[in-house]
Amino acid sequence: MYLKLDEMLQDDLQTVSSSQLADALSINPHNVRKDIAYLDGVAHLGGGYDIAALKAAIAGQFGFDKPRKACVVGLGQMGTVILNYDQFQPHGISIVAGFDSNINKIETMRTSIPLFPSYMISETVQRLAIEFAVLTVPEPAVDKVANHLVDGGIKGIINYTSAIVKPNQDDVHVIHLSLLKNIRYLTALMTVNQHKNL
Amino acid sequence: MYLKLDEMLQDDLQTVSSSQLADALSINPHNVRKDIAYLDGVAHLGGGYDIAALKAAIAGQFGFDKPRKACVVGLGQMGTVILNYDQFQPHGISIVAGFDSNINKIETMRTSIPLFPSYMISETVQRLAIEFAVLTVPEPAVDKVANHLVDGGIKGIINYTSAIVKPNQDDVHVIHLSLLKNIRYLTALMTVNQHKNL
Repeated sequence: MYLKLDEMLQDDLQTVSSSQLADALSINPHNVRKDIAYLDGVAHLGGGYDIAALKAAIAGQFGFDKPRKACVVGLGQMGTVILNYDQFQPHGISIVAGFDSNINKIETMRTSIPLFPSYMISETVQRLAIEFAVLTVPEPAVDKVANHLVDGGIKGIINYTSAIVKPNQDDVHVIHLSLLKNIRYLTALMTVNQHKNL
Repeated sequence: MYLKLDEMLQDDLQTVSSSQLADALSINPHNVRKDIAYLDGVAHLGGGYDIAALKAAIAGQFGFDKPRKACVVGLGQMGTVILNYDQFQPHGISIVAGFDSNINKIETMRTSIPLFPSYMISETVQRLAIEFAVLTVPEPAVDKVANHLVDGGIKGIINYTSAIVKPNQDDVHVIHLSLLKNIRYLTALMTVNQHKNL
């Protein structure tokens, strides 16, 4: 909803109804109203909700208005693309460090983002107060790297690998974005759907 | 579970118990047993389940043993990395086409995968019997491209964009893998968690 409200503001819209929002997001209008009712300070005017106020309330509730510092661990092809991705900055997300175990790669890679060898993960995460990490290392390195990140104080991990990340602390959140696993899931859905049509 | 069983086979293991599987996957052993009970032809031996038989049963149930043809639409940095990703082939997934609206890019890009201009999406998807697509186009192009894919007969879309993909056919499955949206979700989890600790 947050990104959709942002789009609406850019299109110079001022108010939006719950059914317009529901339609734009492909969800039930009842759920939209219920979710918005949880937020403080969002009045329902005649024409609907004030878009800027609604966006600010969501941002406050979930900390989207807070700048966030992130790092990328594993500078293979995918990690390098994410490291240099320029679309995070307008959303308050800064990638402030990249890590790789290959010292030669760190010394030769051309990027404006500071790079460090993997053995410096814990101290660098702590020193720069990095809050979350994007993980794109080879699978055998996942456990070790995740522990170093958590030791440094990281509270969130976006896991692009197919390995399961089990941080040794309860308050560390992990989101699994493995492309291979999601392709498996997609083809499973496609197969079950075909069986339904028999 | 499927990938984990594959790993176990590579490590020359032969049987596995539901509690070992549950531990490896960080889920409840009861759920593991319940899921396996749905599969045909998986006997529980003294030492646990036969790993090869369990893997084959899952593959049959969800069509993981079927080769799959895929395409990548949008050959920016992320799309190009996925196009040339070499880790799908051992899993029976072949990327057989790439599409981009920039003809110059298609003519100059160095890759072994056949590339086509975007206006050829429908006919190419149909001709090559491509089953699913990875979508990495700029957001304004998403609706149009998704419709062309569905017109060509595609049944699944992995959506890397932050736009919501709404195919005009019910039997097309979409998996949303936007990095930005997942970072938002992660930071929301981290914020709520901090509030819990107040």
